[in-house]
Amino acid sequence: MTDTVTAAVVLIGDELLSGRTRDINLQQIADFLQPMGIQVREARIVGDEQDDIVEAVNTLRARNDYVFTTGGIGPTHDDITADAIGAAFNRPVSEHPGALAILEARYRENGTEVTPDRRRMARTPEGAELIDNPASGAPGFRVENVFVLAGVPSICRAMLEGVGPHLKTGAVVHTVTVRGRGLREGDIAAALRALAEAHPMLSLGSYPWFNSQGYGSHLVARGVDAAALDTVKDALIDLVKAQGGEPEIV
Amino acid sequence: MTDTVTAAVVLIGDELLSGRTRDINLQQIADFLQPMGIQVREARIVGDEQDDIVEAVNTLRARNDYVFTTGGIGPTHDDITADAIGAAFNRPVSEHPGALAILEARYRENGTEVTPDRRRMARTPEGAELIDNPASGAPGFRVENVFVLAGVPSICRAMLEGVGPHLKTGAVVHTVTVRGRGLREGDIAAALRALAEAHPMLSLGSYPWFNSQGYGSHLVARGVDAAALDTVKDALIDLVKAQGGEPEIV
Repeated sequence: MTDTVTAAVVLIGDELLSGRTRDINLQQIADFLQPMGIQVREARIVGDEQDDIVEAVNTLRARNDYVFTTGGIGPTHDDITADAIGAAFNRPVSEHPGALAILEARYRENGTEVTPDRRRMARTPEGAELIDNPASGAPGFRVENVFVLAGVPSICRAMLEGVGPHLKTGAVVHTVTVRGRGLREGDIAAALRALAEAHPMLSLGSYPWFNSQGYGSHLVARGVDAAALDTVKDALIDLVKAQGGEPEIV
Repeated sequence: MTDTVTAAVVLIGDELLSGRTRDINLQQIADFLQPMGIQVREARIVGDEQDDIVEAVNTLRARNDYVFTTGGIGPTHDDITADAIGAAFNRPVSEHPGALAILEARYRENGTEVTPDRRRMARTPEGAELIDNPASGAPGFRVENVFVLAGVPSICRAMLEGVGPHLKTGAVVHTVTVRGRGLREGDIAAALRALAEAHPMLSLGSYPWFNSQGYGSHLVARGVDAAALDTVKDALIDLVKAQGGEPEIV
């Protein structure tokens, strides 16, 4: 058995709950962590409310190796993530000299005034380590196993690149997806269940799709055991063929 | 003061955590509930694990008027939402005669065999009320304040339409969004904060954007007080103009 390394994600922002914005950070974080063998086990979406952020972060950091938050680290009054993380860890929040130096250098470069609101972006909980932001300067930060990232997807992604090398890695979970056009879940449910029972270390799932071209199902197997996955892939292909379908590996 | 009606959303499915699928149901649920004055206050994304579903549903149903779940109600072995909801309410789960009748009629129509796995889609916790599924037949269900919907977005949406008339309505939260091209958050943070403090009943936020055409910020105000929102809209427009920008209402 190889180790499982787990992560949780906390997506912060009223705009995600109001319907204004459709999140994409959960997916990009999961995609980034997957090749490192780090599995996202749960995620929460909370508004710009300190108590909600504290509850989510404290619950999730206690039972996962890592927690990644996104959002709420900009210069405006609704950016309260640094204070919330400070509250979660019961640590005072103040200007981080390194973060301030980064901001000042960046703003000096493009002739921007360092207003008190911009200085807010240098605030971190005591003892935080900075996370580099090559995209726009203002850094994220880490406190213990919690990584505080930006909400803007391109900046979030850039920060992940910087964080990656510092994470411990686990057993990589591989995925096999077989697409069956015209395949109805109800027709293969029994065979799929039998396959899942024969391979308890793999996770098997079935996902129906419908679009203007028709319908079908994706059969998905996931697990760390590449040999078992190969066996199951062949079985999934046979399963689609047995229904008269033409399986595609996607 | 008008009443606030709150909702929480539980998105169920390994595929949402693995990165395979990017959720859209949270956004469509929020968009559907907004005109009814029902605010989504929090959301969780959990895998196909009974304990995780139970924890999320029980926590959220205790502190929100409504909970909506999506996913896990199909015919395959990984569809465990009905059992999880039964466990959450401590109610036995069995075949619902009405649900079975709907499935049998639907399958009779298109000549499909009602396999034991397809019959699984008729299972509900004791006392559940069915939610009509005009899209594909297999119904969702409601137990107390928890609504169990499909994960396929088009079916989820169709079920919401059926649920809508049964929900109590609250004070509708309206939104004003002013787009400022070239507007930097740091330049308007102080003015925005002052505006937020002058209108404590409204929620004001700022969201930076970056794309190949440039950058800017969206200034968003939300609240039930239409007159106050109008005032704030004008102030936001002035704020963008004061920075030399051309505000757009979006």
